[in-house]
Amino acid sequence: MLILMESGATQDQVGEVLSLLEATGIRCQVNQTPEALSIVAPNASKALKPDRIEPMAGVRRVVPITSPYKLASADAAAGRTVVDVRGVGIGGPELAIVGGPCGVESREQLFAVARYIADAGGRLLRAGAYKPRTSPYAFQGLGLEGLSLLAAVRAEFDLGIVTEATEVETFDAVERCADMVQIGARNMQNFALLRRAGRCGKPVLLKRGPSATLEEWLYAAEYVLGEGNRNVVLCERGIRTWSDHARNTLDVSVVPAAKALTHLPVMVDPSHATGRRDLVIPCGLAGVAAGADGLLVETHCHPEKALSDGPQALLPSDYLRLVEQARALHRVIQAPTPAGLRL
Amino acid sequence: MLILMESGATQDQVGEVLSLLEATGIRCQVNQTPEALSIVAPNASKALKPDRIEPMAGVRRVVPITSPYKLASADAAAGRTVVDVRGVGIGGPELAIVGGPCGVESREQLFAVARYIADAGGRLLRAGAYKPRTSPYAFQGLGLEGLSLLAAVRAEFDLGIVTEATEVETFDAVERCADMVQIGARNMQNFALLRRAGRCGKPVLLKRGPSATLEEWLYAAEYVLGEGNRNVVLCERGIRTWSDHARNTLDVSVVPAAKALTHLPVMVDPSHATGRRDLVIPCGLAGVAAGADGLLVETHCHPEKALSDGPQALLPSDYLRLVEQARALHRVIQAPTPAGLRL
Amino acid sequence: MLILMESGATQDQVGEVLSLLEATGIRCQVNQTPEALSIVAPNASKALKPDRIEPMAGVRRVVPITSPYKLASADAAAGRTVVDVRGVGIGGPELAIVGGPCGVESREQLFAVARYIADAGGRLLRAGAYKPRTSPYAFQGLGLEGLSLLAAVRAEFDLGIVTEATEVETFDAVERCADMVQIGARNMQNFALLRRAGRCGKPVLLKRGPSATLEEWLYAAEYVLGEGNRNVVLCERGIRTWSDHARNTLDVSVVPAAKALTHLPVMVDPSHATGRRDLVIPCGLAGVAAGADGLLVETHCHPEKALSDGPQALLPSDYLRLVEQARALHRVIQAPTPAGLRL
Amino acid sequence: MLILMESGATQDQVGEVLSLLEATGIRCQVNQTPEALSIVAPNASKALKPDRIEPMAGVRRVVPITSPYKLASADAAAGRTVVDVRGVGIGGPELAIVGGPCGVESREQLFAVARYIADAGGRLLRAGAYKPRTSPYAFQGLGLEGLSLLAAVRAEFDLGIVTEATEVETFDAVERCADMVQIGARNMQNFALLRRAGRCGKPVLLKRGPSATLEEWLYAAEYVLGEGNRNVVLCERGIRTWSDHARNTLDVSVVPAAKALTHLPVMVDPSHATGRRDLVIPCGLAGVAAGADGLLVETHCHPEKALSDGPQALLPSDYLRLVEQARALHRVIQAPTPAGLRL
Repeated sequence: MLILMESGATQDQVGEVLSLLEATGIRCQVNQTPEALSIVAPNASKALKPDRIEPMAGVRRVVPITSPYKLASADAAAGRTVVDVRGVGIGGPELAIVGGPCGVESREQLFAVARYIADAGGRLLRAGAYKPRTSPYAFQGLGLEGLSLLAAVRAEFDLGIVTEATEVETFDAVERCADMVQIGARNMQNFALLRRAGRCGKPVLLKRGPSATLEEWLYAAEYVLGEGNRNVVLCERGIRTWSDHARNTLDVSVVPAAKALTHLPVMVDPSHATGRRDLVIPCGLAGVAAGADGLLVETHCHPEKALSDGPQALLPSDYLRLVEQARALHRVIQAPTPAGLRL
Repeated sequence: MLILMESGATQDQVGEVLSLLEATGIRCQVNQTPEALSIVAPNASKALKPDRIEPMAGVRRVVPITSPYKLASADAAAGRTVVDVRGVGIGGPELAIVGGPCGVESREQLFAVARYIADAGGRLLRAGAYKPRTSPYAFQGLGLEGLSLLAAVRAEFDLGIVTEATEVETFDAVERCADMVQIGARNMQNFALLRRAGRCGKPVLLKRGPSATLEEWLYAAEYVLGEGNRNVVLCERGIRTWSDHARNTLDVSVVPAAKALTHLPVMVDPSHATGRRDLVIPCGLAGVAAGADGLLVETHCHPEKALSDGPQALLPSDYLRLVEQARALHRVIQAPTPAGLRL
Repeated sequence: MLILMESGATQDQVGEVLSLLEATGIRCQVNQTPEALSIVAPNASKALKPDRIEPMAGVRRVVPITSPYKLASADAAAGRTVVDVRGVGIGGPELAIVGGPCGVESREQLFAVARYIADAGGRLLRAGAYKPRTSPYAFQGLGLEGLSLLAAVRAEFDLGIVTEATEVETFDAVERCADMVQIGARNMQNFALLRRAGRCGKPVLLKRGPSATLEEWLYAAEYVLGEGNRNVVLCERGIRTWSDHARNTLDVSVVPAAKALTHLPVMVDPSHATGRRDLVIPCGLAGVAAGADGLLVETHCHPEKALSDGPQALLPSDYLRLVEQARALHRVIQAPTPAGLRL
Repeated sequence: MLILMESGATQDQVGEVLSLLEATGIRCQVNQTPEALSIVAPNASKALKPDRIEPMAGVRRVVPITSPYKLASADAAAGRTVVDVRGVGIGGPELAIVGGPCGVESREQLFAVARYIADAGGRLLRAGAYKPRTSPYAFQGLGLEGLSLLAAVRAEFDLGIVTEATEVETFDAVERCADMVQIGARNMQNFALLRRAGRCGKPVLLKRGPSATLEEWLYAAEYVLGEGNRNVVLCERGIRTWSDHARNTLDVSVVPAAKALTHLPVMVDPSHATGRRDLVIPCGLAGVAAGADGLLVETHCHPEKALSDGPQALLPSDYLRLVEQARALHRVIQAPTPAGLRL
């Protein structure tokens, strides 16, 4: 259940509710936003009826959470969640765009892209120091050295860093360096990693698995949320189907479908979704038109030299065009519909 | 091969080229646009080398067609094809929006929707008189009576009619009534029907099959084009995947992928693609953002009473909102990118 | 509902039941097997309660048909259907194996395969005179000439002929020549063709569409059965998935799943299911182990010269091996389980 | 490259080859089977030409490994690998059948199933102490307590234990208890876990991911093999498709397709592949007919009380029937084809 407190509720009143929950053996989480304080207690309805809590002082309303994923459910929040990544709000009125190369390859490569993005006004950079690769013989990322380069870039260009954690063992190092920790598609049901991400102090970007249903994706978010980390952003990156003109099939309808079920922000990664440079811009724009809160895009100054995923990386000039068009589309989508329409 | 004639080429010069092709046993098609005349001769390169034709008087250039689908290939046309449906150009600068109910159910139902669309400035209406249905016990459409109602609507509201032909046997009647004949997804590889559509005097809307690759879809178009009907519009309507939050998965990336390979216009049907009213608008907008030339949308004044596909039909007010936003997005997409961008 | 008559019911008693149904406006079908006579009346329960019929003379029992596909439902028959194709019972105790080339290509090719099959004791031959092809430029079959060759083979080798009908227009000619008419995967929801097949005097082999659910497949059978042709055999031929080591994915579990829902026999086509010669035998055997009533297998004396589907055609020697092992497996599957098992 | 030594090669001769490889900076693995000794050196061909090694004393032949997965490749072994699990050879002439419940739930439940299996002559038991579950609120397994129960069962009934490791953190405990460590489908690309499994002293059962291609599966095996553990058994457990009559689609053709590419044994899990008790036996038999080296089957004395996956667990009596029929089929498949066949 979700317990919404009055805006003027006192700490004592909150304390009384928490004491009752504790006494009944119910685990819960407290969320304080500028507007209000709320308490989420997943799976509490069996042990405690709402009419036990609703009359308590300071309680505005008790809402049952009917979804099987409790903390991720739209019922479990008073409004949409905005995740702050180094000052950039994902899920708020602004479209968040995260650019950068697939992997950190060298100081030169990383700084060239970072300079470019920063000069253009970008504020978040993505790049992997740890790369999960299908083949053990493929480039696996620079590891700690890559993280150092990311830290250097962060200091030099004042960019927030989004980078992937691939295993519990190296999570601490990634967490220290990152402003947002990415959980990759293949790890969407790596539950140990999800739990670790839930104990992480940084926001988490949770990619949809290549064959995950929307429900499974929300359950994966629930693993993270359940450990106490409320800053989760979902990211659609294409699903595996028989359709063969692109590397994956961008499932654009999952954006509005997810937003109907969860309070969490949803981004789209058109680079992995398509694997083809010429499809990245139209598919990125499609994601925005469908209501995505942001885009995650691969860009590289010399895609032909990239150690991974070169064919899908945008050239800088194309990246600029995408950003421009995406922002313009986003304004149209967010505009209130005028009255007196004509076809 | 594609033979592009000079803009000032004479009829005699064209005739000489055609005579040579005929003498060599090559079938070809002549396309006359306001700008230029061209001759497409699929599979001709084996019998005749380009350097035999290029020196001929009036010939500007000979372009080999390297795709396996010849007439549908982007190589096979001097530019993008614009298909005219009762004065509405599909594939041109304007976004084409076709609204209407899934099936013709009654005079009242059809006229109510038509009046609504016409009042709002719409010019094309879709509705099926023949409905291919999974179960033989489901409503199969009103047939000839439905066609009469469509003819009446056309006369009353000056709307162009888009309606489906489901079999060769009843094609003549559909052709007489329709301004554009739809070939449904399940018939995308009904080759007899495709050939009949190719001999039809009206434009053809060719839906993608639920498990058709892009290549198979273009081959299906080739069957229509090969019989002489150049007015083919492709329409993506969702593919069948394991992703279960929507009826089908809208494959939005097929829009730019198709436009890279073919000169034919591409539309999107977000209603069948999703099967859920709340997803139709975001997915329709996604289609436009991805570069679609138009939308095919189900709308119904009383979806709860619809004999088929009610859950996906938009209410009139939502339809208006979609049209408004789609046109606004389309303007953004088509705008030339300004110089001096900032992120 | 299914009305089972007593084994000693008289013609008059049957007539009385039929009269009552007719008087109530109910369409029905009479099935006479050696054991008993039954009457199937789909969708009758609304108009007529079973307790109106059950007390009538000669009526043994009335069984409601709860499936949405009525005539195809296991409820709609007193036992499993055995379809007779020129003396070969499909669905009975013997495994039915149909071999032959993908398409009729020439007298030499066809007679070579036929001789081979006949010499080895085979009784049914498959080969297409009309070939539905993805590309209009691919070999489309020999048409009427192909049918003549099939008729000649039939006369010469005393083989039953299984051949495909691709359109209503040429159905009459195919029906005259064939002992069993095949409806191909791409035509599984070509409802005009299904209805025509339902009015055909020959048994029908109904392939599953490449993206058809089991339910859609049974509805397709219902279209055929509804026109009065009770001799329908289902054939699984692989479905379209993202799994890329074979042309399609043989959905072997659909065999027992279908047999749980319908009284119709189910065959498996491992050739189209895999598209790879080296997978045909293991997958054919898998089909038999899963309970298939027969196999449809492509075989060719010179696969490297085949005009279509050469890479999946078995060589004669492999065909023999498949037949031998399939029959041996089938005996194991059909054997009653002995008591006193030890692991 | 694969270096096959003469059967009479001396340790010194082997040593010389290893020294040369080492001097050239090439990592390699030595495999000693009763028949022969071989050395696999993945990715060695760039640094060292075969004709440098072939003339060396004791070397029989040098075979290039052309597959991208080196150690898993069929080229990389002198024959098929037989993995020994507590005296049961998987991949050898006997069909290996592993039965047991989905998860360890209690002493009573586990011992009841184990007694049953042991009494019937079974030698391997499967049951999970750690259960990866889609929802964090679902039963997650008994953990260490479950492992203790497995150890007790092992001692009591002399059964080899197959149990899943879900994370690096708890791997040591699982390794100590298990005779074979299972890597579950969702962890097929959990590379940290794969590497840990590669350093494990027990054989590994590697399930195919629900959307993994054959190539990705073999690469996953390569991660395990690359760390030095050569005892890897692959297990197909159904893939995720749109086909909805079963929980997953058993991809039976992957069995022969995998065996053509790798020397590793391949098993089939018909329980997870179907999720429906009535499909488990036919699909298990289909797996055997397709060439599987063994079956992994869920069985439970009281499936209706199972804490997970009850609907797919076989009853003891059905389990016995499956074992009996599977062994009989396996004998047919393995029998040499007699000469002089007749259809």
